[in-house]
Amino acid sequence: MIEDKFKDECGVMAVHTHPEASTLTYLGLHQLQHRGQESAGIVSSDGARLHLHKSMGLVADIFTEEALNKLPGAIAIGHKRYSTTGDSAVLNAQPIMVDCNKGMIALAHNGNLVNAWEIRHRLEAQGSIFQTTSDTEVIVHLIAQSREQTLADAVCDALRRLEGAFSLVMMTRDRVFAVRDPRGFRPLSMGRIHNGGGDERDTIVFASETCAFDLIGAVYERDVKPGEMVVVGPEGVSSRFFATEMKQSSCIFEHVYFSRPDSRVFGRPVQISRELMGRQLAKESPVQADVVVPVPDSGVTAAIGFSAESGIPFRFGLIRNHYVGRTFIEPEQTVRDFGVKLKLNPVRSLLAGRRVVLIDDSIVRGTTSRKIVRLV
Amino acid sequence: MIEDKFKDECGVMAVHTHPEASTLTYLGLHQLQHRGQESAGIVSSDGARLHLHKSMGLVADIFTEEALNKLPGAIAIGHKRYSTTGDSAVLNAQPIMVDCNKGMIALAHNGNLVNAWEIRHRLEAQGSIFQTTSDTEVIVHLIAQSREQTLADAVCDALRRLEGAFSLVMMTRDRVFAVRDPRGFRPLSMGRIHNGGGDERDTIVFASETCAFDLIGAVYERDVKPGEMVVVGPEGVSSRFFATEMKQSSCIFEHVYFSRPDSRVFGRPVQISRELMGRQLAKESPVQADVVVPVPDSGVTAAIGFSAESGIPFRFGLIRNHYVGRTFIEPEQTVRDFGVKLKLNPVRSLLAGRRVVLIDDSIVRGTTSRKIVRLV
Amino acid sequence: MIEDKFKDECGVMAVHTHPEASTLTYLGLHQLQHRGQESAGIVSSDGARLHLHKSMGLVADIFTEEALNKLPGAIAIGHKRYSTTGDSAVLNAQPIMVDCNKGMIALAHNGNLVNAWEIRHRLEAQGSIFQTTSDTEVIVHLIAQSREQTLADAVCDALRRLEGAFSLVMMTRDRVFAVRDPRGFRPLSMGRIHNGGGDERDTIVFASETCAFDLIGAVYERDVKPGEMVVVGPEGVSSRFFATEMKQSSCIFEHVYFSRPDSRVFGRPVQISRELMGRQLAKESPVQADVVVPVPDSGVTAAIGFSAESGIPFRFGLIRNHYVGRTFIEPEQTVRDFGVKLKLNPVRSLLAGRRVVLIDDSIVRGTTSRKIVRLV
Amino acid sequence: MIEDKFKDECGVMAVHTHPEASTLTYLGLHQLQHRGQESAGIVSSDGARLHLHKSMGLVADIFTEEALNKLPGAIAIGHKRYSTTGDSAVLNAQPIMVDCNKGMIALAHNGNLVNAWEIRHRLEAQGSIFQTTSDTEVIVHLIAQSREQTLADAVCDALRRLEGAFSLVMMTRDRVFAVRDPRGFRPLSMGRIHNGGGDERDTIVFASETCAFDLIGAVYERDVKPGEMVVVGPEGVSSRFFATEMKQSSCIFEHVYFSRPDSRVFGRPVQISRELMGRQLAKESPVQADVVVPVPDSGVTAAIGFSAESGIPFRFGLIRNHYVGRTFIEPEQTVRDFGVKLKLNPVRSLLAGRRVVLIDDSIVRGTTSRKIVRLV
Repeated sequence: MIEDKFKDECGVMAVHTHPEASTLTYLGLHQLQHRGQESAGIVSSDGARLHLHKSMGLVADIFTEEALNKLPGAIAIGHKRYSTTGDSAVLNAQPIMVDCNKGMIALAHNGNLVNAWEIRHRLEAQGSIFQTTSDTEVIVHLIAQSREQTLADAVCDALRRLEGAFSLVMMTRDRVFAVRDPRGFRPLSMGRIHNGGGDERDTIVFASETCAFDLIGAVYERDVKPGEMVVVGPEGVSSRFFATEMKQSSCIFEHVYFSRPDSRVFGRPVQISRELMGRQLAKESPVQADVVVPVPDSGVTAAIGFSAESGIPFRFGLIRNHYVGRTFIEPEQTVRDFGVKLKLNPVRSLLAGRRVVLIDDSIVRGTTSRKIVRLV
Repeated sequence: MIEDKFKDECGVMAVHTHPEASTLTYLGLHQLQHRGQESAGIVSSDGARLHLHKSMGLVADIFTEEALNKLPGAIAIGHKRYSTTGDSAVLNAQPIMVDCNKGMIALAHNGNLVNAWEIRHRLEAQGSIFQTTSDTEVIVHLIAQSREQTLADAVCDALRRLEGAFSLVMMTRDRVFAVRDPRGFRPLSMGRIHNGGGDERDTIVFASETCAFDLIGAVYERDVKPGEMVVVGPEGVSSRFFATEMKQSSCIFEHVYFSRPDSRVFGRPVQISRELMGRQLAKESPVQADVVVPVPDSGVTAAIGFSAESGIPFRFGLIRNHYVGRTFIEPEQTVRDFGVKLKLNPVRSLLAGRRVVLIDDSIVRGTTSRKIVRLV
Repeated sequence: MIEDKFKDECGVMAVHTHPEASTLTYLGLHQLQHRGQESAGIVSSDGARLHLHKSMGLVADIFTEEALNKLPGAIAIGHKRYSTTGDSAVLNAQPIMVDCNKGMIALAHNGNLVNAWEIRHRLEAQGSIFQTTSDTEVIVHLIAQSREQTLADAVCDALRRLEGAFSLVMMTRDRVFAVRDPRGFRPLSMGRIHNGGGDERDTIVFASETCAFDLIGAVYERDVKPGEMVVVGPEGVSSRFFATEMKQSSCIFEHVYFSRPDSRVFGRPVQISRELMGRQLAKESPVQADVVVPVPDSGVTAAIGFSAESGIPFRFGLIRNHYVGRTFIEPEQTVRDFGVKLKLNPVRSLLAGRRVVLIDDSIVRGTTSRKIVRLV
Repeated sequence: MIEDKFKDECGVMAVHTHPEASTLTYLGLHQLQHRGQESAGIVSSDGARLHLHKSMGLVADIFTEEALNKLPGAIAIGHKRYSTTGDSAVLNAQPIMVDCNKGMIALAHNGNLVNAWEIRHRLEAQGSIFQTTSDTEVIVHLIAQSREQTLADAVCDALRRLEGAFSLVMMTRDRVFAVRDPRGFRPLSMGRIHNGGGDERDTIVFASETCAFDLIGAVYERDVKPGEMVVVGPEGVSSRFFATEMKQSSCIFEHVYFSRPDSRVFGRPVQISRELMGRQLAKESPVQADVVVPVPDSGVTAAIGFSAESGIPFRFGLIRNHYVGRTFIEPEQTVRDFGVKLKLNPVRSLLAGRRVVLIDDSIVRGTTSRKIVRLV
């Protein structure tokens, strides 16, 4: 593979009926930060109209107390994105919020539509205008142009025209919609905050990963199913399938490195998947070595599995510097493998003169791996 | 009148074919800053695609060297806006840039459409989505949906559907369009930078006020006429009228206080208009007084006219503090007329015990005037 | 003269016993902003200890509500400075606050000591350390090392060793000291806020210019006299002379352009001085001309005086752009006299074909004047 | 113990003769960031004078390219501090730079002087002024007031008067001094960058921890010894002892949690110390359990040691969120143990229904530990 890492993961979050909906959404996005540090946005509804705030940067920098105060109401959705190209990054930040014949709608999307450009060209030919280059704008056009009478029908009509991966949350003045594509490529889970007073008084939440639930005191309930649309409104929670479930093809990288190890993704704890992968590797490729060393942080669990299976001791032989993430000024007189050294430092006392098994989350990152091996 | 000041003026600027098109546009917007300090934006074309940068704030803060470097190309348009309400201010910043069946289009608008909501509701009923609340988005929808074959025809078709005030500049990959409504309510002037080598090598510029030309070395040529659309493209400058000129009703406040005194607006120097207004006032309302004092800055010229006509000496009896414009922390133990005092301070030695004629630009600002009179 | 402008003016402010001492000081500094836009600082006393906040920038940017909340207490002094050279600018910002055998002392200084380096070298030889390059640090060393028993005596002892210009305000936990050098080179005025309940309940304020009093509701009382030290403490206001008044040599530039025209400086309204200077110029150098035009803002009053004396009409033929003050990006293809054009724009309609008398505040700024004349 | 954590560690760094001295110092400070995130500063020497830049915040935010360009020269020292109390934080940031009879001196200090206030009171009585509340200012006063003829002698004279912990680096125009107190309480190591051309052309570096050497390509040479002063100057490296080594009492917390595991501190790899502590704990307090879980990051190595000794499997049962470090907005409707949850999230699938041995770096943090135990 050519690229060092796939970078198209995003995180979405939704909260239906909670006095601090936008604050909970912000905390959820904070937990999903590993899915994207480039931009973040939240739309809230105060029952009458929608309020939007989105910007480039980290969640904690974007959502100050002042910003959250401008996002009133009991319903909110949020989005966290990894990376965009080009200078129109802010324009492409999500959620996207529009006004149309179905009223005000906001939508946040994690995925990749394979027929987005085709649909867009058809819509443009009919006189539609586009203000972003994101797939999400295509979806809202389809919803607005649907001839179906109700919004729910119009959404289903629009979703049936899409091909590719889409886990999305959508909101109107009083409703939240949560949807997964028929193949279930990206995760989307549903949780519940018990407020007392029966099911109908509970807060319903949706998030790309369950680690977002833990911080806000929500309990994991179930995954949104492939091809399903869950609607939460004043009348309660309802579900319908806009398409028959197709052969499931969940994204393998969710378990390998996108997701946090404390999340449950596609119905299975990520930590356990990773440990099993490490064990499997030890069975498939047994080696003679003195020590098993992970590339932190995502390689840790697999390395523990490898160690447990092989009996070779596990040691933290590479230390990660957690203050990286900003631009760094390199010395002109170049230090070899500077970029990798900035992030990782080998523990000489553990590695010197030993045979080392180095476990990374994946071998996608060819060039980086080579540098790390050289370091070690 | 109820309001202190009308606040709906904006400034627009366009440059066709200059190696530093976005820098000239930025300097022009800087000169138009008195027409709006809330947000500013520029779109440039490098011949292949359009580049957009817009943000809240002052021109000099928004367009850093880094920002201008991301606006390459020889064609650019810009916009400066006064004030918006609500939290969606960034969304409503201009220029608006869209992709449609006529290609990429950017548009900046100074004015107020009276039938904007009517058109919008009709478009929404047909399935169009709206991402802002600005009139400008209505215009681009109309252009995109026009059945006319060429862009110029489509623009004229769209403009004929608009009612109200609109002085606008528009651009595509290779062309700039400059338009004024049939009544010519807002100003829009055309200028020229002589680059040597004949007319076809000149840079053509457009701006809301001619003071934008002086800084960039452009020479005023003429006003865009009411109902006229001037098009500048690879083939040169051409002009057509999309509507017959109607009874002209230029905005009186342009001469009274919107425009800078060094600008020529509606074909007449603003400075001269203001002096004549002062003289007229002296003729219509002669008074016995010791001194004529202007409310700076916009009342100065009228006060000079009043003084010249009446023979009463002109003196600077009110000093303006030019560092205002940020949020100020007031003492809790309130100082009387604090807000006015922060901006204006009377010169006691000039005013004490004298009969004072106080000349402001207009009596729109009733409450402020009363406070100023109290100060004096 | 070689330089365009003298740039060593600063502004000082002090407030003794007011519940919002630091807020009033901040507002006073705001009014003194024309005396320096580079840095500002305030020290307050809550009765037990002193609190300092100083930074580079404009008053309104430095003193946010949060910053003022960290400056509690009923006594405060402040400082505003024009310009420093070198990279140690923050270190040299004032007030300077130290702890010594006389307790905590803060000091803000407007002036220039001619024997500062001489004293400094002597102090260093004795083992003193210096952390800034400002004259002010020399003064506090002298106070700390004085053998006098009381602080007031020690201050007088220190002041007697200084040569040059110094208008300074100083504070301890419970007292404010205001001092002017024996020649009275720089201004320093005393004002009073009547709080009701008799003189001893009044707030006493000091400022470089009286325009600082107007905004905070203080009434001008008198100037601090050359060689005088006014002390405000729990026991009330007292005065003593640390030196006999010498031949007064007040800085002429205070009246010419440092001070605001609405201030009373050296006992005389600045506005009136400037008008008289204009009249004097008209008498000394009579000319035949069509119009008198000021270089705004500081040349306005002298031009009015010139016009009044000569009978030649006064007109605003140069418009100043008030948004300057930030860094501006120049086009590479240089515009002639760009820097001046950015600040001033001639009104063609007033100047074309006329004989113009151009009045600036002073001819110090030779190069700029030449550019302005070329513009006109 | 009462406090959650001791917070008085700092980091120091020095570079003698390297064309990019300030950049290397900045990178070293970056590696020492775990020793303090509150403020950072660097002083460089261009051979003629010293240049200082210090500010509140993270290393990468403070030292932009622009800031480093203002720190020219081949010699530099730097400082990173953890935390200060009060609002005078910037004043207390280090290095401290002064001018005195020994020339310009800059000094950065990691430690705590027990007789600082006593010395300070004596110096104040003699007329010295103090501008900060940091111990460091006491040291420079002592150096300035020493009667010794050479700077090296004066420094030794000053150091002999100090009691307590001090690992410090100091610089003049052309020399770097590195010093450790006679008990060797805080670490300080010396390294070398081989530039080719023999020892005298090497770059000598000093740092609180050896992890700072790895990033800049320096090789660990030795620790500065207790009571030793190493001087690096144009004449090369020399060493002298200002005091006889006393009974060594190195700070135990350096190995427990201050230092990075990839550093060698007090002559021993931190990683190995921590693993041995974990093994020791397993021997001293054997328990029956299903899984050993570390509190990341500092408890990881001890947990590995505990697991290796006890045979109980090691698992990552707590996930740390690395984006924390900013202010977080809590929901009003408080989530239980919110602060801990923000940092750590338990992996339910690993912990549910199991007997867990939880290994933290230390039990200093009593309250936090209790919350973590409750989480688990």
